[in-house]
Amino acid sequence: MAEPHHPPAVVLMTDFGLADTYVGQMKGVILTIAPEARIIDLTHSVTPQNIAQGAFLLERALPFLPPASTIVAVVDPGVGTARRAIALESGGRTFLAPDNGLLTPILEKGSPIRCVEITNRRYISPERSTTFHGRDIFAPAAAHIASAVPVTDLGRPLPPDACIRIPTPAARPLNDGTSWEGTIIFSDRYGNLVTSIDSVFVAENGLWVLNTDTINLPLSSTYSDVPDGATLAYPGSFGTLEIAIRNGNALLRLDLKPGDSVRLEKQL
Amino acid sequence: MAEPHHPPAVVLMTDFGLADTYVGQMKGVILTIAPEARIIDLTHSVTPQNIAQGAFLLERALPFLPPASTIVAVVDPGVGTARRAIALESGGRTFLAPDNGLLTPILEKGSPIRCVEITNRRYISPERSTTFHGRDIFAPAAAHIASAVPVTDLGRPLPPDACIRIPTPAARPLNDGTSWEGTIIFSDRYGNLVTSIDSVFVAENGLWVLNTDTINLPLSSTYSDVPDGATLAYPGSFGTLEIAIRNGNALLRLDLKPGDSVRLEKQL
Amino acid sequence: MAEPHHPPAVVLMTDFGLADTYVGQMKGVILTIAPEARIIDLTHSVTPQNIAQGAFLLERALPFLPPASTIVAVVDPGVGTARRAIALESGGRTFLAPDNGLLTPILEKGSPIRCVEITNRRYISPERSTTFHGRDIFAPAAAHIASAVPVTDLGRPLPPDACIRIPTPAARPLNDGTSWEGTIIFSDRYGNLVTSIDSVFVAENGLWVLNTDTINLPLSSTYSDVPDGATLAYPGSFGTLEIAIRNGNALLRLDLKPGDSVRLEKQL
Repeated sequence: MAEPHHPPAVVLMTDFGLADTYVGQMKGVILTIAPEARIIDLTHSVTPQNIAQGAFLLERALPFLPPASTIVAVVDPGVGTARRAIALESGGRTFLAPDNGLLTPILEKGSPIRCVEITNRRYISPERSTTFHGRDIFAPAAAHIASAVPVTDLGRPLPPDACIRIPTPAARPLNDGTSWEGTIIFSDRYGNLVTSIDSVFVAENGLWVLNTDTINLPLSSTYSDVPDGATLAYPGSFGTLEIAIRNGNALLRLDLKPGDSVRLEKQL
Repeated sequence: MAEPHHPPAVVLMTDFGLADTYVGQMKGVILTIAPEARIIDLTHSVTPQNIAQGAFLLERALPFLPPASTIVAVVDPGVGTARRAIALESGGRTFLAPDNGLLTPILEKGSPIRCVEITNRRYISPERSTTFHGRDIFAPAAAHIASAVPVTDLGRPLPPDACIRIPTPAARPLNDGTSWEGTIIFSDRYGNLVTSIDSVFVAENGLWVLNTDTINLPLSSTYSDVPDGATLAYPGSFGTLEIAIRNGNALLRLDLKPGDSVRLEKQL
Repeated sequence: MAEPHHPPAVVLMTDFGLADTYVGQMKGVILTIAPEARIIDLTHSVTPQNIAQGAFLLERALPFLPPASTIVAVVDPGVGTARRAIALESGGRTFLAPDNGLLTPILEKGSPIRCVEITNRRYISPERSTTFHGRDIFAPAAAHIASAVPVTDLGRPLPPDACIRIPTPAARPLNDGTSWEGTIIFSDRYGNLVTSIDSVFVAENGLWVLNTDTINLPLSSTYSDVPDGATLAYPGSFGTLEIAIRNGNALLRLDLKPGDSVRLEKQL
């Protein structure tokens, strides 16, 4: 007996915002080609043209996305230039994006990868704009993938090494491995400051302290370890350390901002 | 013959906003477990940590939500503390939320209720964060409910009386029942001021006036009862009285704000 | 053998924003009546009560919406007055909106049109508010259309000529057809200024220049034709000419705004 049929999931992450009709037009194209698709908006609020932030958010969301989903990521300052459009198959999922480093976390995972440049006119819009490849290239190509077109049909094979990679904001070990240096990547809706330092480092025993130029914070487990209004550092929702003020806004109240350095140090 | 199968509806209401990937991650978890679910975003813009506002918005939307839906409400200042996660079954629907009063309107309805504390590790994420129970507890539990897991399987029974309730912003009768006191709960996108005074009070005959410290407004039926730019009070979209300026913004133009008292009085 | 069944698509465009529960309530109503519907949010950020902008955005998105979709458009300054609610069938799609000019682009297309006033109480909410016809009239009527109710069942036939039309912001030819006058309609998330001048005019050979009171811009093909920080005019994502600053924000940096006149001129 056949496996139960599951409607395909298509995940969208862009810097298009929701104020315009850009995302709505992409969804129209996707559901025209793949009427059964379930569309998940991961976010459309990547800071405009911030490829590194997009790569971080995508990597950190991966464990929570459906296993066989098709993922479209568009943060595309080079739209209309000669930059390639690419599709990667990795770990059962297919990722479509401009070839500008946005898929660096996928390229750097160990899993086997099939990689193509999206060139097959059969699977993209015949009348392509030079400004909106999200609608004219990525949405139709993704909808065809979600409709079971093999990724190798989208265009010509590309060695994964030919794809653009960017430095990802992972933390770097300092000294003898007892400290790590990272950065504040962004602040969320609550004003919590999300750093690039993976929380796994503090899983091992010991007393850890998160330092910035202005504050030293012994690691807490969660908000309730400190009183209301106090500043704390703790393992956050993205799997990295965060700095917050309990029931307050750290971005507004502390002298810290995205881009600032942070150091995690083991107390000896 | 079997009834036609309808895809389950999962309704989300949070204070997470849409700028971050929080809601997208929840949806990824839900569609991984329940690929056929239809997800409805009731809103993600509850004022951060405003439980009373969340309870009001949920109660007022109930008549418009699908009958057998699963409803996830997360406004959760106590995440990471010992506060319980609960699931209520009421009127054919299942509600999942932190036990902090957000479900007060459901608890106070007369319908029979089945209530559990969500503790069954089989239906929540094995690696739970201490900061994001929306993704790690409520989303997977809701997806299992939407996949026909009985609510009693989610954890141990809890007497409904053990659940936290908060004072809800219902209007209070004053004097001999000819007047009612309430508050302005919030302002909407148009600057209309939504009060807690139920519109049913003005269904009975008589001339009613809505008073604040600064203005007295005889009740209108709708915007078109007054000229452009005039201030009016009328039965609004949430089933309560509202104060607005026709084709203008009452929040910006009047000296009134959320939290202010309002009084409805019958003219004798 | 029957054609494969495709779930119906319902497209929503409103000025309700996403901060309130208005759109969520509409979706609850739609999925209660049509549980299999796929809902596409075209946008909910039309400038409040700006009918002309809504008409433009709807027209420009049409080529990208599913062929048999049901489209609900609500920008409704006249809600609660005697203005009609209408449904048009055109080109295989059904459009529902207040009769205030929002559907002008559909009325002005050549395609045959079936037009009704939505009056049948069987397909709208029994307890209608006077302020929220999006939820109480348009959402239930659209869900019934998506469930295969014929548009003619929604109410009494109306001659299309009886429907309100507004001047649409199409460009006007000037002189002997070698120049066109239009306006800036809105600015998008990136600060790009979207004009009403259709890009087809520049498809024919010749050198074209876009002029405003302050700048003269020879037409470019796309962003990469100019260096970073330079101002350019080019055929944009809505099929009309746009003015932008490459990797910058034209709305903030140029002395131009929605409503300003622009002229396209052929260089002789």
